[in-house]
Amino acid sequence: MPTYSAPTKDMQFLLHEVLNATGSGIGGYDELDRDFTSAILEEAGKLAENVLAPLNVVGDEEGCTLENGTVHTPTGFKGAYDQMREGGWIGLDCDPAFGGQGMPYLMNSAVGEMFVSANMAFNMYQGLSHGAYNAIHTHGTDAQKQTYLPKLVEGSWSGTMNLTEPHCGTDLGLIRTKAEPADDGSYRITGQKIWISAGEHDLTDNIIHLVLARIPGGPEGVKGISLFIVPKFLVNEDGSLGARNDLSCGGLEKKMGIHGNATCVMNYDGATGYLIGEMHKGMRAMFTMMNEARLGVGLQGYAQGVVAYQNALGFALDRLQGRAVTGAEAPDKPADPIIVHPDVRRNLLHQKSFIEGARAFTFWGASLIDRAHRNDDAEAEAMISLLTPVLKGFLTDKGFETTVLAQQTLGGSGFTREWGLEQFVRDARITMIYEGTNGIQSLDLVGRKLGLNGGKTVMAFFEMVKSFIKENEGNADLKSGFLDPLKASSKDLQAAAMYFMQNMKNPNDALSGSYDFMHLFGHVCLGLMWARMAKAAMEGLETGDGDAEFYRTKIATGRYYMARQLPATALHLSRIQSGGEVVMDLDAAHF
Amino acid sequence: MPTYSAPTKDMQFLLHEVLNATGSGIGGYDELDRDFTSAILEEAGKLAENVLAPLNVVGDEEGCTLENGTVHTPTGFKGAYDQMREGGWIGLDCDPAFGGQGMPYLMNSAVGEMFVSANMAFNMYQGLSHGAYNAIHTHGTDAQKQTYLPKLVEGSWSGTMNLTEPHCGTDLGLIRTKAEPADDGSYRITGQKIWISAGEHDLTDNIIHLVLARIPGGPEGVKGISLFIVPKFLVNEDGSLGARNDLSCGGLEKKMGIHGNATCVMNYDGATGYLIGEMHKGMRAMFTMMNEARLGVGLQGYAQGVVAYQNALGFALDRLQGRAVTGAEAPDKPADPIIVHPDVRRNLLHQKSFIEGARAFTFWGASLIDRAHRNDDAEAEAMISLLTPVLKGFLTDKGFETTVLAQQTLGGSGFTREWGLEQFVRDARITMIYEGTNGIQSLDLVGRKLGLNGGKTVMAFFEMVKSFIKENEGNADLKSGFLDPLKASSKDLQAAAMYFMQNMKNPNDALSGSYDFMHLFGHVCLGLMWARMAKAAMEGLETGDGDAEFYRTKIATGRYYMARQLPATALHLSRIQSGGEVVMDLDAAHF
Repeated sequence: MPTYSAPTKDMQFLLHEVLNATGSGIGGYDELDRDFTSAILEEAGKLAENVLAPLNVVGDEEGCTLENGTVHTPTGFKGAYDQMREGGWIGLDCDPAFGGQGMPYLMNSAVGEMFVSANMAFNMYQGLSHGAYNAIHTHGTDAQKQTYLPKLVEGSWSGTMNLTEPHCGTDLGLIRTKAEPADDGSYRITGQKIWISAGEHDLTDNIIHLVLARIPGGPEGVKGISLFIVPKFLVNEDGSLGARNDLSCGGLEKKMGIHGNATCVMNYDGATGYLIGEMHKGMRAMFTMMNEARLGVGLQGYAQGVVAYQNALGFALDRLQGRAVTGAEAPDKPADPIIVHPDVRRNLLHQKSFIEGARAFTFWGASLIDRAHRNDDAEAEAMISLLTPVLKGFLTDKGFETTVLAQQTLGGSGFTREWGLEQFVRDARITMIYEGTNGIQSLDLVGRKLGLNGGKTVMAFFEMVKSFIKENEGNADLKSGFLDPLKASSKDLQAAAMYFMQNMKNPNDALSGSYDFMHLFGHVCLGLMWARMAKAAMEGLETGDGDAEFYRTKIATGRYYMARQLPATALHLSRIQSGGEVVMDLDAAHF
Repeated sequence: MPTYSAPTKDMQFLLHEVLNATGSGIGGYDELDRDFTSAILEEAGKLAENVLAPLNVVGDEEGCTLENGTVHTPTGFKGAYDQMREGGWIGLDCDPAFGGQGMPYLMNSAVGEMFVSANMAFNMYQGLSHGAYNAIHTHGTDAQKQTYLPKLVEGSWSGTMNLTEPHCGTDLGLIRTKAEPADDGSYRITGQKIWISAGEHDLTDNIIHLVLARIPGGPEGVKGISLFIVPKFLVNEDGSLGARNDLSCGGLEKKMGIHGNATCVMNYDGATGYLIGEMHKGMRAMFTMMNEARLGVGLQGYAQGVVAYQNALGFALDRLQGRAVTGAEAPDKPADPIIVHPDVRRNLLHQKSFIEGARAFTFWGASLIDRAHRNDDAEAEAMISLLTPVLKGFLTDKGFETTVLAQQTLGGSGFTREWGLEQFVRDARITMIYEGTNGIQSLDLVGRKLGLNGGKTVMAFFEMVKSFIKENEGNADLKSGFLDPLKASSKDLQAAAMYFMQNMKNPNDALSGSYDFMHLFGHVCLGLMWARMAKAAMEGLETGDGDAEFYRTKIATGRYYMARQLPATALHLSRIQSGGEVVMDLDAAHF
């Protein structure tokens, strides 16, 4: 059975030596001193290691079952959920006005990574609640907030997002679910939603569905969609639970992975719903949920890579096969551990250098969210908006790839269920799909985000990379291994952006290169993260405080990324510059 | 449920217009005229489409079950196997002296692709028999051949390969299974073997296990391993079945995919075995089975890509979401089919250009085998020996990637079991692992094959590419889209080979780049294939015979490969040239 070990040391390094959290001037960050964050991370780590991780295989093997309209979660999930709830983890970054801990989103991300690595399917139950919390907190009336938020924050109720219908997922303009006004100001919701994660389960007393539907007579397409709060149990004036609403789980989806999470068909049969936000402006409200959800999915992607890597490494240190080409390294044993073989090391370093870079990127993204929200910083808001599709698309593609590489480290054992690696592959796979497929992320990036603020935001990104390089050019150690490759990759990114601008007349040219652009952008971001981490590690070595081996390992891992992964930017650029003709040329009938 | 459509037209194009089979001078190929091959392909295609494909999901969902030592295959497998057997498909390329059809290996590959695309887990039962047939045919005594081959060829018996033990897979020198000589010249085999595909099942009357074991007193390591024939039922003098041998299936492996195939733990408890080939020379005999098996696994990899692509394409033509950026293409419908979107097309073309290139590469490889065996051509033998790790490693990595891309085309539907794409991903995954992990393939390529005949074989490959370019440089259509990129990629390959030669002193430098070299080599091979196919298609267009749309599509697909996939060679070269230091630097304890 696979194991999980919380990477608290690496997280502390990022928080305090790379991001310099306490000195960053972000509202509330001054409280995040080393001891405080260490206490939180250690506590969350224990929960992840000892409670959630052992349930991961159970969740996969048992899955969820639907009986008489009730969904039963796998053995142990309810107990674990109660522990999460009692520990206050569910409302960690929620508004104290509604019972939350008021912690920065940054800390929520760090803790979230551990929970997701330990048990992704389990963590989705509370993850969805968080999305519902956000939507109501941002768009709800005071009465709606008072009714729903305290329960969502304490975790006695959970939430869902209802977007997809059988005939439409990406194209929400095609939604058919109806919301007919009733006399009391509420609406009657009728329609079918599919792929509703945590749509029905036995972990909480109530489930608050956020449902996209169409009020008859409104505009066609996405402009006529409104968002509704549709609770499983109606809520009485005094906050107690009232009648069962007219909605039900019509079935559970059989799927490749995340078996521990209930993916429901939800039927709304004239269910009572309450408009949230403005009429016909449901998409805007839904995007409040989706943007943060996308960051969360990016995190899921690399977090599966983290636990997969840990188990691959354990195997590589333990499994004896063959001898090092330069002479036996464990002559007292019948063979050397496979980590002596260059190709096994290459595979492991590919995994390790990605996940550590991805963690830095995610934490940086989380700090941008905090800066945007807590300091009302429009530039940070724009930057994270630009980076969101990159965080989602790049980190999930590469996170999945990492689980596949980790599985490969185990050879035949990786294919067996016994070792658990294949579950990480199957679970990670969904992250490339949900919350907008990665193809959609790339369209968002090139079609919308690149032109944000007339291109000023992407220019600010380039500037940031440039000034970092300039500021540190005097550091010879950093220059050849980190700054030079970063400069080259950043030039590739700029050349790609330039290509899109020069070919605006034919949008197919840009859109044919969008996926490569997303990866190109992701690599530059991780290159920047590695340069920053290497700088911090070099400083750590210089001051002589801390763990010198940790710093040296960090630098060596970063050098691998810069030498072996970052050069992919040139390939992506050349694909982009090959233009749209080879992509658009073939008639659909001749594929 | 997914569907499968046999690609007979594309196969005919390869056989007759690219490989020019009948005129190639390979023994027996003169019989392969268009009508003859068409008849075979159509017949096999029907079996694949109508009998094997519908059982693919059944096999996945039911899996195999072990009851009182007997393994039951999924519903329908026995009936389908009997149809395969009665149709003479199992002995298609086997020696007519033992009841085979004597067809070239090339035809076996074409037919095999269809069977594997339709149902990979099912086809493995006869695939393993083929390996056992080869070993006995090459290394067995006349008596052994007479006893076993006719039954294996007609399919009433099947075969297996028993290599792996719990503590060793890649490093066969660690094998512990014992073979003690008995008075009658046979041996008593004792030990446990794991991951034995088709080790026990209910499809045939007998199962002929080929087992690697160690005769006490022999040399240590791989030099003391011998190969044994160990039948499930002993065979009487008259060929009838005798006593049950002392071997049994001790369990079925639970695994990620290929559920329809029984992956067995095999226990040998003093079972009667017969030495095949020379004592202590078992590895050599086993490699006879493994080399061809590796080609077969490469084929499995891309064949899963073929069926995945077909279903992705079907979805993309059917599913309506959004509008083409250049204006609605199906204004009468609520949305356009998603194939109008550039990123969906990019994804599909990535799949299509790989699988068609992979098919050409595999067919070419099969023709090299035929040339080697039927014409006793040592150069062809050396060339296929060089290319074997590339065929196995590159085609399975990319084949798996293709199934993942196809799954992505379906968005959320791709993650559900209902649409069947996720099964192709799970089934294809094993191909990167078994018959030597792809890491091992890359070591074989760089450590052994590159220096074959003092490097003459790889030089012959370079020469072949060079002369093809030179011969066709006058063809302007071919030059810019195909020959120029091929030349560039071939230069990258030569530069990588040169790098290895110049850094022989430190083997870790070469071995740190072996995986990238395997991919670099694979791309150049597919680039060469696409240049050849484009040339043939241009000739087809010129003569005006045949289907002009087919030829134009072929050229357009090839142009995509050359523009968007082949440039990966530069990335692989840059990784190789970055050397071994970044890979070897980190101490194992600090990973």
